[in-house]
Amino acid sequence: MELNFTPAEIADIVQAHATRGNTHEIVRGIASLSTARTGDLSFLGNPKYKPEVATTAASVVLLPADYVGEPNPGQLFLLVDKPSVALVRLCTRVERLLWPTPAPGIHATAVIAPDVKIPASATIGPLCIIESGARIGERTHLQARAFVGRTAQIGDDCWLMPGVTVTAECVLKNRVRLQAGVVIGSDGFGYEFIAGRHEKVPQLGNVIIEDDVEIGANSTLDRARFSQTVIGAGTKIDNLVQIAHNVVIGQHCLICAQAGISGSTTVEDFVVVGGQAGLAGHLTVGKGAKIDGQTGVNSDLDPGSFVKGSPCLPYNLEQRINVLRKRLPDLFRRVDEIESRLEKPSAPV
Amino acid sequence: MELNFTPAEIADIVQAHATRGNTHEIVRGIASLSTARTGDLSFLGNPKYKPEVATTAASVVLLPADYVGEPNPGQLFLLVDKPSVALVRLCTRVERLLWPTPAPGIHATAVIAPDVKIPASATIGPLCIIESGARIGERTHLQARAFVGRTAQIGDDCWLMPGVTVTAECVLKNRVRLQAGVVIGSDGFGYEFIAGRHEKVPQLGNVIIEDDVEIGANSTLDRARFSQTVIGAGTKIDNLVQIAHNVVIGQHCLICAQAGISGSTTVEDFVVVGGQAGLAGHLTVGKGAKIDGQTGVNSDLDPGSFVKGSPCLPYNLEQRINVLRKRLPDLFRRVDEIESRLEKPSAPV
Amino acid sequence: MELNFTPAEIADIVQAHATRGNTHEIVRGIASLSTARTGDLSFLGNPKYKPEVATTAASVVLLPADYVGEPNPGQLFLLVDKPSVALVRLCTRVERLLWPTPAPGIHATAVIAPDVKIPASATIGPLCIIESGARIGERTHLQARAFVGRTAQIGDDCWLMPGVTVTAECVLKNRVRLQAGVVIGSDGFGYEFIAGRHEKVPQLGNVIIEDDVEIGANSTLDRARFSQTVIGAGTKIDNLVQIAHNVVIGQHCLICAQAGISGSTTVEDFVVVGGQAGLAGHLTVGKGAKIDGQTGVNSDLDPGSFVKGSPCLPYNLEQRINVLRKRLPDLFRRVDEIESRLEKPSAPV
Repeated sequence: MELNFTPAEIADIVQAHATRGNTHEIVRGIASLSTARTGDLSFLGNPKYKPEVATTAASVVLLPADYVGEPNPGQLFLLVDKPSVALVRLCTRVERLLWPTPAPGIHATAVIAPDVKIPASATIGPLCIIESGARIGERTHLQARAFVGRTAQIGDDCWLMPGVTVTAECVLKNRVRLQAGVVIGSDGFGYEFIAGRHEKVPQLGNVIIEDDVEIGANSTLDRARFSQTVIGAGTKIDNLVQIAHNVVIGQHCLICAQAGISGSTTVEDFVVVGGQAGLAGHLTVGKGAKIDGQTGVNSDLDPGSFVKGSPCLPYNLEQRINVLRKRLPDLFRRVDEIESRLEKPSAPV
Repeated sequence: MELNFTPAEIADIVQAHATRGNTHEIVRGIASLSTARTGDLSFLGNPKYKPEVATTAASVVLLPADYVGEPNPGQLFLLVDKPSVALVRLCTRVERLLWPTPAPGIHATAVIAPDVKIPASATIGPLCIIESGARIGERTHLQARAFVGRTAQIGDDCWLMPGVTVTAECVLKNRVRLQAGVVIGSDGFGYEFIAGRHEKVPQLGNVIIEDDVEIGANSTLDRARFSQTVIGAGTKIDNLVQIAHNVVIGQHCLICAQAGISGSTTVEDFVVVGGQAGLAGHLTVGKGAKIDGQTGVNSDLDPGSFVKGSPCLPYNLEQRINVLRKRLPDLFRRVDEIESRLEKPSAPV
Repeated sequence: MELNFTPAEIADIVQAHATRGNTHEIVRGIASLSTARTGDLSFLGNPKYKPEVATTAASVVLLPADYVGEPNPGQLFLLVDKPSVALVRLCTRVERLLWPTPAPGIHATAVIAPDVKIPASATIGPLCIIESGARIGERTHLQARAFVGRTAQIGDDCWLMPGVTVTAECVLKNRVRLQAGVVIGSDGFGYEFIAGRHEKVPQLGNVIIEDDVEIGANSTLDRARFSQTVIGAGTKIDNLVQIAHNVVIGQHCLICAQAGISGSTTVEDFVVVGGQAGLAGHLTVGKGAKIDGQTGVNSDLDPGSFVKGSPCLPYNLEQRINVLRKRLPDLFRRVDEIESRLEKPSAPV
């Protein structure tokens, strides 16, 4: 989207400490140092791109306070505490243009049970369905064709994008953002093998999503067998992630795309789960653990662990073994040679 | 959800053979032995939790008939054939409270082709779409915004949860339960490389889902190129699973979350596929085979196989190799040492 | 679905060069050589099935021009340049029966912003939502409950199946086919860790889908942080695939089911990504590279590479190592034995 900020507005938004140079350009876009053109803002987010600052065509550049170097003519340097944080501030401001606050109200095509009370500050978009006993919080936005089941509770300032399903009795606290197609409260996968058939173990619990959680498109979170599946405050979940029944995830975790967490596993605070990683059931992953992409976790992990591989090992060991693994053809050859030397009695050793 | 059963009602539901002790509590919840509180029912489902029976605060406990031990005061033991089965009976009863049988009828906002006949016992929820020529069975429940395509057939007692899509010509037999967001009959992934481009091979077949199949949220099942993609009776499929075109799955299989089965592969009865496992195309997986999580299957599997790893090996061999793999750094060191000994002519050997 | 073609119609559709034999059957179905029955058409798509031609019960068989052999009585051989291509021609013709061109028009239940102009040739199905500023091309078909967000652009001859979501500002060019449940333009997964919390980095870019792209059911494509996530012309994406923010995919690629491509990775033209493969972020995968199923790619790949394993190695090396890996128990035993020989001073060496 095209922006429209004066350099002075930018300096204010990013809370610049100092400036160098000057530009008359209006900031129309944001781009990386190497791709920026006149009228763009750029930023030094990672020290490895430092050499690109001298040659960038950006009209405004966010730089750390200790950056040494002068702007080109017609270029403005804004010195800030941390360019990546300054950039978040600017992007948050821009986001209001991309996603303007919707006008409160209920679309004529929404289907809402008569007993449900929608706050005057909430926005219920077209073709949404809200069943009996559900609760919708202040300023909450159901964008379009969202489904909120019987007695489900949606807190304040939530945003449910198109096609989200929140089934009966599930709970979203405040400022929860669900991307399109998310399913909250599907049945857990529980069966008892009785007389040659898998008999369903009914899944009677629910899902609790704490404050400030964000969940990516088409991810699925199962309701508990009894009790709750829980996602802790501030945790962010990417697209196509599977969270099984009775999983409990702590606060401020990151769960990357296509990861899967099996039933009854507990993930403590500040854990990072890489993309396509899989966690077996009934485990505990300690606080701050990091799990690399495609890793398979089959046992508990200590707090602060960093693991990789399937089944997983400590990251450095796994990396070392992966190096040695490449040398297996050579190792077999060496052992063959040793054996052949040992088998020739007359050979000098 | 809160329950409300007298101890006598519970004893009747679980078909208790005998009782020990007594309680005046109404059963309000179900919980594990260690977390149960007064008013809860608990159960000994796994012998390893036996020590917890003596100290559980549960008011009612389901125990195997041969359990030795007396209840605490105010506590009722119910002796049953198999506590896990008894629990399923109770949960099935409770499930009717969570998901009460919906009143039959057609919601005013449903969009139904004029030629479609909806049985008086069926429930078609809000914003469902049923195209021309489709058939809906007795007591079948389309919960909300489900889509049933042209000439698709849905049998009796099926339950399609919010946002399910069943495309044209696909067939669901009886008692099929589809969780939210399931797609039945998407195009198979078939292209022919002609003149530098991937030309689509149209996918003209359909999908057949036999009796008592359950499919998890956002899973996708492709229609066959011609003929059928088939899911056998009693098979249960978890969330985010991919079933490609022309796959044939037998009866009473379990396919765990995020597994993927490639085109034209046949999976025989009673197979278990672990989470995130992947099966290549055009394979046959024999009856009762077990495939561990994250496993990659690239060749046929004999009936009763148990495999692990990518590419997979017999489970025990893979486990053994994984142990040895951890010792590779040591093995390389040992071979280095052997070589250095052999290279020193003067060294004693 | 049942077909209804005379042998002469078939010969015309597949552009047969020559015929052998004759049949009076009407062609009712298409089947493989071994499963075909009277009234079916079959084909020799893969030389390994050549022996089945002599015994097939198919009434019409598509064969390469150099095929040597005579039909059975009542059987017609059609000789063509390439049977697989001839089959595509026939299937494309049949597909019009399965998916007849819908009558243009706007369903009464569609919710369309007043400023949106729908071409007279387009079909907007039931319960679709089109927001303000969106553009819909000629002959484009929104089948049912599709969502097209604010100022999104959908080109000509596109087909959005049930439940597709295209969020604000995203762009589909021409002849794009999106299977059910696809999400285009979900937020990229970007957070900055500030003061002990993951602060959202707003995702301000969009997604561009070029001509002739097809995307499988429930796949998710994230909008760029700024700038664009791009899918090149002619690329085909299977079900449940994750494309992260700022990914750029070239032309005529194939991305198989459940693969995931992390942020800012570039995939050049004609790349094939196997099922469940994962690509880390900020990589470049060179033109024509092939990535096997379940592979993990952590570094750039040269054009024409063929890789396998996690982390990946050249395909042949990985295959060789997988063979040696199975022999690790034997290798450890051999090294044990060498050591024990070397440790016995009296042993002859």
